[in-house]
Amino acid sequence: MFSGVTVEQFEQAKNKLSTLKKDPGNEVKLKIYALFKQATQGPCNTPKPGMLDFVNKAKWDAWKSLGSISQDEARQQYCNLIGYLLEAEAGSSAQVAAKPAGSGATYETLLVTTEDDITTIKLNRPAKKNAITTEMYNEIIAALEQAAKDDSVITVFTGAGDFYCSGNDLTNFTKITEDGVQEMARRGGELLRKYVKAYIDFPKPLVAVVNGPAVGVSVTVLGLFDVVYATERATFHTPFSQLGQSAEGCSSYTFPKLMGAAKASEMLLFNKKLTAAQACELGLVTEVFPDSSFQSEVWTRLKAYAKLPPNSLALSKQLIRSMEKERLYAVNDAEVELLVERWTSDECINAVMSFFSAKAKL
Amino acid sequence: MFSGVTVEQFEQAKNKLSTLKKDPGNEVKLKIYALFKQATQGPCNTPKPGMLDFVNKAKWDAWKSLGSISQDEARQQYCNLIGYLLEAEAGSSAQVAAKPAGSGATYETLLVTTEDDITTIKLNRPAKKNAITTEMYNEIIAALEQAAKDDSVITVFTGAGDFYCSGNDLTNFTKITEDGVQEMARRGGELLRKYVKAYIDFPKPLVAVVNGPAVGVSVTVLGLFDVVYATERATFHTPFSQLGQSAEGCSSYTFPKLMGAAKASEMLLFNKKLTAAQACELGLVTEVFPDSSFQSEVWTRLKAYAKLPPNSLALSKQLIRSMEKERLYAVNDAEVELLVERWTSDECINAVMSFFSAKAKL
Amino acid sequence: MFSGVTVEQFEQAKNKLSTLKKDPGNEVKLKIYALFKQATQGPCNTPKPGMLDFVNKAKWDAWKSLGSISQDEARQQYCNLIGYLLEAEAGSSAQVAAKPAGSGATYETLLVTTEDDITTIKLNRPAKKNAITTEMYNEIIAALEQAAKDDSVITVFTGAGDFYCSGNDLTNFTKITEDGVQEMARRGGELLRKYVKAYIDFPKPLVAVVNGPAVGVSVTVLGLFDVVYATERATFHTPFSQLGQSAEGCSSYTFPKLMGAAKASEMLLFNKKLTAAQACELGLVTEVFPDSSFQSEVWTRLKAYAKLPPNSLALSKQLIRSMEKERLYAVNDAEVELLVERWTSDECINAVMSFFSAKAKL
Repeated sequence: MFSGVTVEQFEQAKNKLSTLKKDPGNEVKLKIYALFKQATQGPCNTPKPGMLDFVNKAKWDAWKSLGSISQDEARQQYCNLIGYLLEAEAGSSAQVAAKPAGSGATYETLLVTTEDDITTIKLNRPAKKNAITTEMYNEIIAALEQAAKDDSVITVFTGAGDFYCSGNDLTNFTKITEDGVQEMARRGGELLRKYVKAYIDFPKPLVAVVNGPAVGVSVTVLGLFDVVYATERATFHTPFSQLGQSAEGCSSYTFPKLMGAAKASEMLLFNKKLTAAQACELGLVTEVFPDSSFQSEVWTRLKAYAKLPPNSLALSKQLIRSMEKERLYAVNDAEVELLVERWTSDECINAVMSFFSAKAKL
Repeated sequence: MFSGVTVEQFEQAKNKLSTLKKDPGNEVKLKIYALFKQATQGPCNTPKPGMLDFVNKAKWDAWKSLGSISQDEARQQYCNLIGYLLEAEAGSSAQVAAKPAGSGATYETLLVTTEDDITTIKLNRPAKKNAITTEMYNEIIAALEQAAKDDSVITVFTGAGDFYCSGNDLTNFTKITEDGVQEMARRGGELLRKYVKAYIDFPKPLVAVVNGPAVGVSVTVLGLFDVVYATERATFHTPFSQLGQSAEGCSSYTFPKLMGAAKASEMLLFNKKLTAAQACELGLVTEVFPDSSFQSEVWTRLKAYAKLPPNSLALSKQLIRSMEKERLYAVNDAEVELLVERWTSDECINAVMSFFSAKAKL
Repeated sequence: MFSGVTVEQFEQAKNKLSTLKKDPGNEVKLKIYALFKQATQGPCNTPKPGMLDFVNKAKWDAWKSLGSISQDEARQQYCNLIGYLLEAEAGSSAQVAAKPAGSGATYETLLVTTEDDITTIKLNRPAKKNAITTEMYNEIIAALEQAAKDDSVITVFTGAGDFYCSGNDLTNFTKITEDGVQEMARRGGELLRKYVKAYIDFPKPLVAVVNGPAVGVSVTVLGLFDVVYATERATFHTPFSQLGQSAEGCSSYTFPKLMGAAKASEMLLFNKKLTAAQACELGLVTEVFPDSSFQSEVWTRLKAYAKLPPNSLALSKQLIRSMEKERLYAVNDAEVELLVERWTSDECINAVMSFFSAKAKL
């Protein structure tokens, strides 16, 4: 299988080892250690370290596990492994370099950046209080899909300007095609279902940095985030019934679960607007910060979190989510079905008309 | 199908339109508009309004949707529609007038009234702290069934006098027939199951106005209400185990869900009595009010809520409830089964006997 | 079936009745009363007491239920019943006397005692902050099994010394046998699954008396307790991800259910340490006490609780638990499966090595 390596090649490999930029991880380091020992001293026959001498025991185990392979073969495997690690690193850098600088440039309504192992998705229509248009729904879905696959450890959601997000852009309702209201409602429902599903399925810790008032669907999906930090200026408002509509984002399940029916109903049925402190007390928000130090405190913390073992974080988050994933899919379906009915109802059409009439008079 | 209408009949219909007392809703108004345009100007051939001109676009869509029906036919349909609306309104008034004034008069133990789109069910045995007798259980079930069907938007539950409700009237236990304890327990279980089911199934927002201390089953079913307002004088007490009994009203599921096992167990296992403030902190109560302004603050708020779109409210409430309706049925069954066993147990019979002995000595 | 008893034997039985030390319970007492009446006056033919005269009605019912059995037969049954009660009591005392005094003596790492109807399981490795070794896991499982079967009404968990419990003893990780890491992980997983199952299945009220800081698995299983009392000195810390591990003790289900994902994630993903007050606010702790009065306040309360009807307490607890027992089993399985994977992962091995390296340097 292999033709043997010279002592020079072995020495070269040994020297190149120190040029690796990334720590290859402990298992690989133990393998390198063991192959080096086998290559230079032959099979392990030193006494087994004591049970509590954990580090030396691990090294000894690794060396011992090579059994009686020859020093020649150990040298060959050593060189192969170092070579593989160097190539992998070079390839990975090349790949990074091939990416367009500032990947956020590809979105019209979002700013998406990755720094310090954190991918940040920033809603970027500050003049419209970051209201979510149809285009923006699609871009957020795409940005979440990309963040799920990139190298980042944590994904952050936030808004540009003083508002976090004013929810569904009601002008979406005015874009009725010839197909009429029914068809518009059906398509809106499909988009919403896909949008909420992107949050349910997101595989890494997802953090909301709520930099100002939040309305509608931007509030309801918070129940699908792992951590929600809010400035004291933030408010949380879900005025569905006054628009003849009904709750989405799985909030008809997550909110009663979180705060009990008695508190959730005031929000979801009776349009109560919460302060940041109230939302924190009810468990919708993890912690509230003074506005002046909000960004610096939150980002210091997030950068520390992003240094934790990434697989442990992702797998722990997925474990927690797995407990109710099927349930959340079913809730999302039921909510969308009711909303599609609502959008074509008299109550909703009246309420949205009143909204635009009132706006027109201003 | 129709023989045409005269211009006079058409004019008459047009004039009668203004005599409608109730807004027929937007969809109907768009239809009336469209038929009038078609009847007077023929098929729609004006330019389509811009996407953002929502109101005119909706009108244009309605007119356009009539296609090429003749002006004659449009006149006929116009007259039919107006006629139908007028008849429906007259019929509805007649029906209301046929109802006995003050429908609350039909109950022995309750005062039931409907005003401002709110049906109020008031427990009316203030001398007995509104303790629930067998008759009262049956009347509450009937009142809930009626409120579910009436025109009200919200249903409110409250108590007459200084107490909200002292729970199950323990004299229910003394009414043992010849059939003996087993049969009494079986019948009591069936009544309780039906009673709790009436809360699970209630299809509109259900609000508790807790005007004073609440005990036993009047506390446990609060987990099935949508909103719970309490005066600061209210307390919440579920002394089941000290009476040798066990929890009902789905509280063995709703309470741990709401406040966690660590808090719920002190109530349900160890008879801890909560203040209104504590109950609010744990999510059992939506909000606590000073006793002096309790009624005025609460009813001002409820009257405002009752003006919201009724279908959105009812459908949103039903959506939230649908998430766990099957679960609640199963919990109700399990609780009733255990209670029937408890009622025939030595522990319970001893405890109830002690209760009456202690009372007899007073 | 019986040959009759003399009047002397009947009088003897009557006199022995007063020597019974334990109240035989109400049903038995009613039976004794009825047999005595039948034996001395014959079949019941007094007027039936009124519905509300509960005590006399119960007595009358018991007497009436004997029908027309003869006075002879009633005397015989009376003597048999008293004889049975006296024998049962004597046997029960003998059994108690046969038990070794201080059953706690059989454990190496625990102190287990039963007093005032309360069985207390005290972790007893104060020098090691009550860290849980493999032996201790096994002993706790055995102690819970024994407490489930003994005569106590409530079971209490606490720690010796200033710490409640520092969690899994990390030296468990250093005891790698020749079978290697995989086998160790598999066995550790099986032990953990069995350990957590012992909490899920525990059939009586289970109370944690948290006398100091709590870490790791001693925190996560608190979600399976019925009541958690904590000294103000207690802290609650679950540093899983920083050790490359993931949550257990059903906490990936119970914690988000209890406090919502936004709060639970900071604990379970990001290693946030809670104060006792914070843990109480989030529902993990029932109540916090000043350290100076902690033990006296808590034990006064627990002794009172232990006097409540034992069956009502146990059956109520089992009813609450039954709502989610299957769910908890499934969660336990999923958590153990992930942890076994984690324990053999590079992230975890690195983190545990760092832990011991850091310790070695101290």
